[in-house]
Amino acid sequence: MWIGIVSLLPEMFCAVTEHGLVSRAVAANRLQIDVANPRDFAHDKHHTVDDAPYGGGPGQVMMAEPIAQATEYLTNAAPSAPRRIYLTPEGRPLNQEVVEALVSHDALVLIAGHYEGIDERVRANLCDDEVSIGDYVLSGGELPAMVLIDALARRIPGVLGNAESLACESFTKGRLEGAHYTRPRIWRGEAVPDTLLSGDHKAVKSWRARSALKRTYERRPELFRAQPLETHEITFIDDLQRGGDHAQEQGS
Amino acid sequence: MWIGIVSLLPEMFCAVTEHGLVSRAVAANRLQIDVANPRDFAHDKHHTVDDAPYGGGPGQVMMAEPIAQATEYLTNAAPSAPRRIYLTPEGRPLNQEVVEALVSHDALVLIAGHYEGIDERVRANLCDDEVSIGDYVLSGGELPAMVLIDALARRIPGVLGNAESLACESFTKGRLEGAHYTRPRIWRGEAVPDTLLSGDHKAVKSWRARSALKRTYERRPELFRAQPLETHEITFIDDLQRGGDHAQEQGS
Repeated sequence: MWIGIVSLLPEMFCAVTEHGLVSRAVAANRLQIDVANPRDFAHDKHHTVDDAPYGGGPGQVMMAEPIAQATEYLTNAAPSAPRRIYLTPEGRPLNQEVVEALVSHDALVLIAGHYEGIDERVRANLCDDEVSIGDYVLSGGELPAMVLIDALARRIPGVLGNAESLACESFTKGRLEGAHYTRPRIWRGEAVPDTLLSGDHKAVKSWRARSALKRTYERRPELFRAQPLETHEITFIDDLQRGGDHAQEQGS
Repeated sequence: MWIGIVSLLPEMFCAVTEHGLVSRAVAANRLQIDVANPRDFAHDKHHTVDDAPYGGGPGQVMMAEPIAQATEYLTNAAPSAPRRIYLTPEGRPLNQEVVEALVSHDALVLIAGHYEGIDERVRANLCDDEVSIGDYVLSGGELPAMVLIDALARRIPGVLGNAESLACESFTKGRLEGAHYTRPRIWRGEAVPDTLLSGDHKAVKSWRARSALKRTYERRPELFRAQPLETHEITFIDDLQRGGDHAQEQGS
């Protein structure tokens, strides 16, 4: 996968290109990252990239031409026609489904805005997609771009190491992940649930499913709307609602 | 504000401490950041911080003791009792309201997990809160921690520069932000909407409100549930639904 990034702060991306999972994907040649700075495409003496908004008011708006030229430079550098994505709180919300759909692209260009945002005419003419990582406001699109790159990198075959796993993680079946425990068996007086020590694989599997279900029910019941409850799940939730939870031990 | 971070990859945070808005907040002494690595609190020869999950299965789990000791170290280093937040997809969803509530704290400790997550007993005993930046899975909690730090930093008084503004941004009134334009007036043949050039402040204000409303209606109508439509907004939405949009010019 090839990812081009349009950013006024290219140095920020060392966080992912030099550390952690994304850097391993780059080192293994499974991911190429290229960055273009709109400032290098601003041809006046001061390399101006922003100006006051038409209509007045506070804040600055990123000018169309430098950001368009940086985007076009990366579009030409891409190994195939890239999908061009503007990171903005006004975009469609990122979720695991969107990640799965985007990872099928060979090439993406991610456009990071700053200040009040970018000139609307760039959005309308050069962006194929707008994505938001969440309903909050950040100082720029760099962190959202890194979040998207990280989410994509771990879905590229061969990138995840042995310590990580795609097997049972949040959102795979519209459920949050349940509780995990590792050694020691007793930590500061608190024991690991017996079932997890039992060696009974079926019981462990069932314990984990219930732990995930309980967490989803307590924290994000709206997730059940997208992925409705199965019969055995309903039984367990009924039990939880009656204050039962007989099946579940502490800490789950 | 003081923020402590528990992370296996402390170097990643240079992305925010050395660049952009957060670095300015740090330089201006409005934000202090301290990082502790659980690996420095793992006292065996190999500084082990992870182990296989009880109950079997793929992936590793972060051991309780190193992460607990790093958290306790930062808790003691904090200027006042910190709120301790674990960044995890299972946490409560971050939004601008959560940001506003958290920025009132003098001290926070942010705990970044890795692999399959951290031992449940740390979550239960050392974390006051769990926050998720969105419904997707990442390789670790570092990027989520940086996202939260950036969102908080721009809400600390005196941090935002002239180019940025809190005045009209997404989610302030439960609406997405509308379109912005800056010079040149005609860019690649496309003109800025006349109203924005009119100098009529009332007309500009109304244009912007309608642009924001149109974008919210088209992209995130569910936001109207939290912040119901006012009468004049309903009139405009009615017009949009009838395919009217007479009041609005191109590009908004």
